[in-house]
Amino acid sequence: MTYSVAVIGLGSMGMGAALSCIHAGLDTYGIDINQISLEKLKFAGAKETAVNANNFAQKLDAVVILVVNATQANMVLFGENGIARQLKKGTPIMVSSTMAAADTQSISQKLSELGLIMLDAPVSGGAAKAAQGEMTVMASGPQEAFDKLKPVLDATASKVYNIGEAIGLGATVKIIHQLLAGVHIAAGAEAMALAAKAGIPLEMIYDVVTHAAGNSWMFENRMKHVVDGDYTPLSMVDIFVKDLGLVNDTAKSLHFPLHLASTAYSMFTEASNAGYGKEDDSAVIKIFSGIDLPKKGA
Amino acid sequence: MTYSVAVIGLGSMGMGAALSCIHAGLDTYGIDINQISLEKLKFAGAKETAVNANNFAQKLDAVVILVVNATQANMVLFGENGIARQLKKGTPIMVSSTMAAADTQSISQKLSELGLIMLDAPVSGGAAKAAQGEMTVMASGPQEAFDKLKPVLDATASKVYNIGEAIGLGATVKIIHQLLAGVHIAAGAEAMALAAKAGIPLEMIYDVVTHAAGNSWMFENRMKHVVDGDYTPLSMVDIFVKDLGLVNDTAKSLHFPLHLASTAYSMFTEASNAGYGKEDDSAVIKIFSGIDLPKKGA
Repeated sequence: MTYSVAVIGLGSMGMGAALSCIHAGLDTYGIDINQISLEKLKFAGAKETAVNANNFAQKLDAVVILVVNATQANMVLFGENGIARQLKKGTPIMVSSTMAAADTQSISQKLSELGLIMLDAPVSGGAAKAAQGEMTVMASGPQEAFDKLKPVLDATASKVYNIGEAIGLGATVKIIHQLLAGVHIAAGAEAMALAAKAGIPLEMIYDVVTHAAGNSWMFENRMKHVVDGDYTPLSMVDIFVKDLGLVNDTAKSLHFPLHLASTAYSMFTEASNAGYGKEDDSAVIKIFSGIDLPKKGA
Repeated sequence: MTYSVAVIGLGSMGMGAALSCIHAGLDTYGIDINQISLEKLKFAGAKETAVNANNFAQKLDAVVILVVNATQANMVLFGENGIARQLKKGTPIMVSSTMAAADTQSISQKLSELGLIMLDAPVSGGAAKAAQGEMTVMASGPQEAFDKLKPVLDATASKVYNIGEAIGLGATVKIIHQLLAGVHIAAGAEAMALAAKAGIPLEMIYDVVTHAAGNSWMFENRMKHVVDGDYTPLSMVDIFVKDLGLVNDTAKSLHFPLHLASTAYSMFTEASNAGYGKEDDSAVIKIFSGIDLPKKGA
């Protein structure tokens, strides 16, 4: 029995997920507008790669969407050459882009009208975990969606949370998770910047913090980039402008104050406006003036 | 060869450090104003415990100070019945209370005038690590201080950082560490409060975050208290009012902006003013209105 899956959006997470599907023996198709990503995935063993699913939509048993945001997700699903109208009835669609709960509900409604099944399934773990098939998936939706997507979930995730039936719960959990991720990166940057100002060697403070109670997953992962002076983007500043924007939109819709997340949003937005939007998200530290940061290879 | 050490300040960290010294076979003396703490340490095998060191100061090879702040440290060292004037010349004093760099420098100056040697040696790890002899020590001072205190450091710490010779570096590293610790607790509270508002079960969001990239040491440790509705103080809200106050004092003295740490300071201060100062520091979540939090034993 073969199982065919298309991954739409071959950025760092989507590429990792697609590679994991190939490694798990699934017939894997890749869709992106970036030709280099398509060639990379084809070379790695994809059945077929293309800018749309016109040639293979009818063969698919599942679709994974890992484009950047709700606008792109709507476009690849329902826009020109959108995949939704081409799929077999009952095909499950794992929507894994980070977006607002309201967007997941709107997409679910439109998929449902086409006879398709949605899993609201944001992911976490970063590019490395995605490539190893060890993403964390925080999912909500009907049990049928979980069941039909099991081969994909097994291939791509080390941990799958079933948060409930209601579409939107997965999105909300992811957004709350991003609140922490974003604040932790910004806090790490603020602490490292203060250390630089105080004349503490950054590799020393990095070593202390990562062995003590002040550590966070993000501090350990991202502040290494600051210590190395290497802002090659794994995940970009602009991703957190978007995600913390979603966090604050969610807070507004729930009439809830977020003291730290609103501050962190301003920090990432300032970094983006200062020209660092496409650099690694740790480049949020560059909003601080009057300090010397390590240079790459120095 | 016996080695005699007095621990001054038998709170959660000091008691742990003193017990670790006993377990390591050091002749251990305890000093506190709390009779219950003195009896507890005596029962655990302390050589002697008292409200001051008048009876045994001359026997000591080392002193560890783990009182709450610089004011208390100055009092136990230089106040009425202060230990500093009673010690043998050359005795090393490990000053482990969290305080500003300027305070460590002032204390070091006064100790030096009395022929005593100081290690600026703040600690981290929490009560549990302290009790297991596995504190993290971030220390600066002369090599002689490190050498003379080796039996104490071996007994109490799993990791000792030698940050440099200059007194004040240890204090600054600890303050930067506390910036992260405090912001992470406040961010955890903000995220959990938003989850409560959004109707996400708190044990679910706790489980997701602790298995994903949004995790921090403090989130994992402190937000468990929120999930359990148990605000029995291990470390109190008022400790972070103090420590984040020191963080902001340090920033002011360095003319440096701290967007997140100043916000977190306001959150803990608000929690203290609302009557939660003596509760566990995770009680900072109680500044958020309009949500239902788990109750203990519910």
